[in-house]
Amino acid sequence: MIKWNNLDTLETFKAVEACKGSVKLAEVMAGENGANRVKNYSVPMAEGLNYNYAAKEVDDALLEKLAAFAEEAQLVEKFEELYNGAMINTGEQRLVLHQMTRGQLGNPVEADGVDKRTFYVNEQNRIAEFAKKVHAGEITNAAGEKFTTVVQIGIGGSDLGPRAMYLALENWAKVNNTFKMEAKFISNVDPDDAAAVLNSIDVAHSMFVLVSKSGTTLETLTNEAFVKDALKKAGLDASKHMIAVTSETSPLAKSDDYLTAFFMDDYIGGRFSSTSGVGGAVLSLAFGPDVFARFLDGAAVADKTATIKDIKKNPALLDALIGVYERNVLGYQATAVLPYSQALSRFPAHLQQLDMESNGKSVNRFGDPINYVTGPLLFGEPGTNGQHSFYQLLHQGTNIVPLQFIGFKNNQIGTDVNIKGSTSQQKLDANVAAQIVAFACGKADDNKNKNFEGGRPSSIIIGEQLNPETLGALLAHFENKVMFQGFAWNINSFDQEGVQLGKKLATQVLAHETEGALSVYSELLNI
Amino acid sequence: MIKWNNLDTLETFKAVEACKGSVKLAEVMAGENGANRVKNYSVPMAEGLNYNYAAKEVDDALLEKLAAFAEEAQLVEKFEELYNGAMINTGEQRLVLHQMTRGQLGNPVEADGVDKRTFYVNEQNRIAEFAKKVHAGEITNAAGEKFTTVVQIGIGGSDLGPRAMYLALENWAKVNNTFKMEAKFISNVDPDDAAAVLNSIDVAHSMFVLVSKSGTTLETLTNEAFVKDALKKAGLDASKHMIAVTSETSPLAKSDDYLTAFFMDDYIGGRFSSTSGVGGAVLSLAFGPDVFARFLDGAAVADKTATIKDIKKNPALLDALIGVYERNVLGYQATAVLPYSQALSRFPAHLQQLDMESNGKSVNRFGDPINYVTGPLLFGEPGTNGQHSFYQLLHQGTNIVPLQFIGFKNNQIGTDVNIKGSTSQQKLDANVAAQIVAFACGKADDNKNKNFEGGRPSSIIIGEQLNPETLGALLAHFENKVMFQGFAWNINSFDQEGVQLGKKLATQVLAHETEGALSVYSELLNI
Repeated sequence: MIKWNNLDTLETFKAVEACKGSVKLAEVMAGENGANRVKNYSVPMAEGLNYNYAAKEVDDALLEKLAAFAEEAQLVEKFEELYNGAMINTGEQRLVLHQMTRGQLGNPVEADGVDKRTFYVNEQNRIAEFAKKVHAGEITNAAGEKFTTVVQIGIGGSDLGPRAMYLALENWAKVNNTFKMEAKFISNVDPDDAAAVLNSIDVAHSMFVLVSKSGTTLETLTNEAFVKDALKKAGLDASKHMIAVTSETSPLAKSDDYLTAFFMDDYIGGRFSSTSGVGGAVLSLAFGPDVFARFLDGAAVADKTATIKDIKKNPALLDALIGVYERNVLGYQATAVLPYSQALSRFPAHLQQLDMESNGKSVNRFGDPINYVTGPLLFGEPGTNGQHSFYQLLHQGTNIVPLQFIGFKNNQIGTDVNIKGSTSQQKLDANVAAQIVAFACGKADDNKNKNFEGGRPSSIIIGEQLNPETLGALLAHFENKVMFQGFAWNINSFDQEGVQLGKKLATQVLAHETEGALSVYSELLNI
Repeated sequence: MIKWNNLDTLETFKAVEACKGSVKLAEVMAGENGANRVKNYSVPMAEGLNYNYAAKEVDDALLEKLAAFAEEAQLVEKFEELYNGAMINTGEQRLVLHQMTRGQLGNPVEADGVDKRTFYVNEQNRIAEFAKKVHAGEITNAAGEKFTTVVQIGIGGSDLGPRAMYLALENWAKVNNTFKMEAKFISNVDPDDAAAVLNSIDVAHSMFVLVSKSGTTLETLTNEAFVKDALKKAGLDASKHMIAVTSETSPLAKSDDYLTAFFMDDYIGGRFSSTSGVGGAVLSLAFGPDVFARFLDGAAVADKTATIKDIKKNPALLDALIGVYERNVLGYQATAVLPYSQALSRFPAHLQQLDMESNGKSVNRFGDPINYVTGPLLFGEPGTNGQHSFYQLLHQGTNIVPLQFIGFKNNQIGTDVNIKGSTSQQKLDANVAAQIVAFACGKADDNKNKNFEGGRPSSIIIGEQLNPETLGALLAHFENKVMFQGFAWNINSFDQEGVQLGKKLATQVLAHETEGALSVYSELLNI
């Protein structure tokens, strides 16, 4: 029997709260004890990744309390409910099935009269077939020439995840001879976004992927019109250059405006849709369907790992629990994601949506106000760039920001130079190792301007190399972490009512149906 | 007589603290009163921009207290000290002269035996001459062919500012026929960064700009070696493809490895160096020196505006004061920068460094610990993309995040479509207007999941168009805001001791001189 209770009603959470401040990071990370922590506080993840939490403010005693809390809060059982098809998205009265795009974790789930795993696999197969025909030159432009570029038109989850995944694998695919087509992305309703992308490509050889689940997203439909206008001016038939990824019930589903349409459904939220057709079409066109399938495999293994009840064997759950402790007990307000990999340059932007849109909520899953803080602010840039930017505040600022590092032993392209006895890759990794210890341990200095207090917690995910499998595992890790945190906070991580009011007011502005402050702002902006 | 006192010792600041919570934003922004606020709470900025703070939690009474505080804290007088050449950077015992790269605000300042304004102007002129020769084909590659691409090699302030400025003007320059050369940027020590950029360009026609003030930045010198290696492999003479921007005392200054070197000095911090040769070389090569000069003009006008003592006529000062009130009285921990302009896609990343590296400090300018919070976390993405990402948390999350919007009446490229009665530009601007009101006023709903409490403060900077002048003004506005906040907190905004410990430990890792936790992390990362 699943009980959906608020965080502050759970006895085991009171025991977690009682541990507040029990671990002094600078102390426990010093000397031999610190070395042992780094060896022991490590959890294997999917695809050879490891989650190392030695530099977090936890110890065995606290971990026991967190385990008890996870049990009382039934976090893994709630995940079971989710993948077995319970109505987890209470706000919108929907199932939550994004994991099913990459595997069948529990019982078959039927909805809308079909088995959903079969439905998702079928769409993946359709996309794979389509992509292969494009790559083989069986589907061409009107002049019979091959398409060379794919352009995704979408916003939010239809943009950030797929874009981050594309950038993460672009160089890997080039090196591994699976690079098929360059991908570009149009998202902002700022007309300069679409215009700049169109100016940078050869439209006659470009395939456009229009992505909107509802088929009504204002920004995306506007950009579609923008692109169609450009194609028309270039003397091209837009319907021969465009496919749609949408739901079967959307106005785009059966339209002659597209070469074909691929389907997702209401059970996959935008920010969880990278492994659905939303990511599948553009990534299969860019890198080939086999690469996309390997990406799904990595995600599937990570999902499987997230079903384990032992928190020391379930990195997503452990990561989630430590985050809740940091947020609700230690009072930290933000998290920085710092991948030491240039290929992950936009991964923090994707996680920013994933985390903040899922868990930036003030009511529980039944719509009742709650009395504790929920999702943190999330931001980040790749190291070492971040080191030369905002790390000053992270080291010596007046608020503590927990850090999530990501590092790989090997780069993707394989070109390197040895300068002063080390390669660039070694320098990169030396920096992330150094930062973890600098943040945790600090260094006393009589000159207080050069003093480092330490006590600044971080974790690191370490892998051999960023490739389709490890990227899938990384993506699913964070999806599952966010889900577990939502369960812990007893909120609905799968709706986003907070975006509605702005949309509604923008419509009023465009209809010139405004008064008061909004009317004056509209005048000032010359609308 | 200038008095450098901590914030919490000033009587006028206690009066500001007494105003805590006196303005209920949702109430004051409603109805006719709200409309009047939007009309009246607006300050003209340089180059036709306007800073509108109607949706901030201030009123006339609080503004009076802030003005009194600005006076007691001598904020404008401290700026006068700065531009007249006082030793403001106490930590490093240096003058702070970045404003002088764009004008002479006060007395002539002599340092290192030269008049600094003359020195900066001279370097600008040298860069302009050089860029003109490159554009005219008077300086070519060894085959006598014109350079078509410029690649900046730098990190931190040598990367983020120049890159953000380049992206901000790239499309503007193309439309206005001042686009001369494409620019690329190599920054991360991750070898995949340099390799990917080199793979994307025609190295035989590329000019590299190596930027390091000290001439010792590890990442930058490593990337220089990486590039030289690639040029050598391509049979090219690196010294004919590379210029340096550095200080006169650096090892790069007189080296035969470069076609020429342009100089800056220790009085310009990296994050304040976009208007020096650090931004000047790459931007003058990309867009022509006249465009760079217009950019400097915009910054100079903004600097001039920042010398005004009346807070209602000095937008940088007012912005700074409201920020201090939000941070130290209302307790807000972060700021989101949300430009409704795709061209400003990396402007938030630049401001992130500018703000967090300058003011993320825990000691005052004399090195004594302080008892109040300083610089906020800063993050942001362009609207409308952000709306479909993290705005959920901003609207309905459990912490309030003050917002800094930026909007323009016109786009840069000028291509647009009219869909459902409005252009994309109008939709873009309708969204930013709607968001301000949605955040401030909220909207009550019996369904608490659809309820918006409002009371979430924002300001907006509105301009006609993003062009060289307005970009310069925008940049200088934020530089001056950060400076005024540093003065208010009595900290040194111009050093960055917090980056040193990580550098030192990374060097130990590479020398294999580690023990304890650091040694185990190094093993795990295979260094």
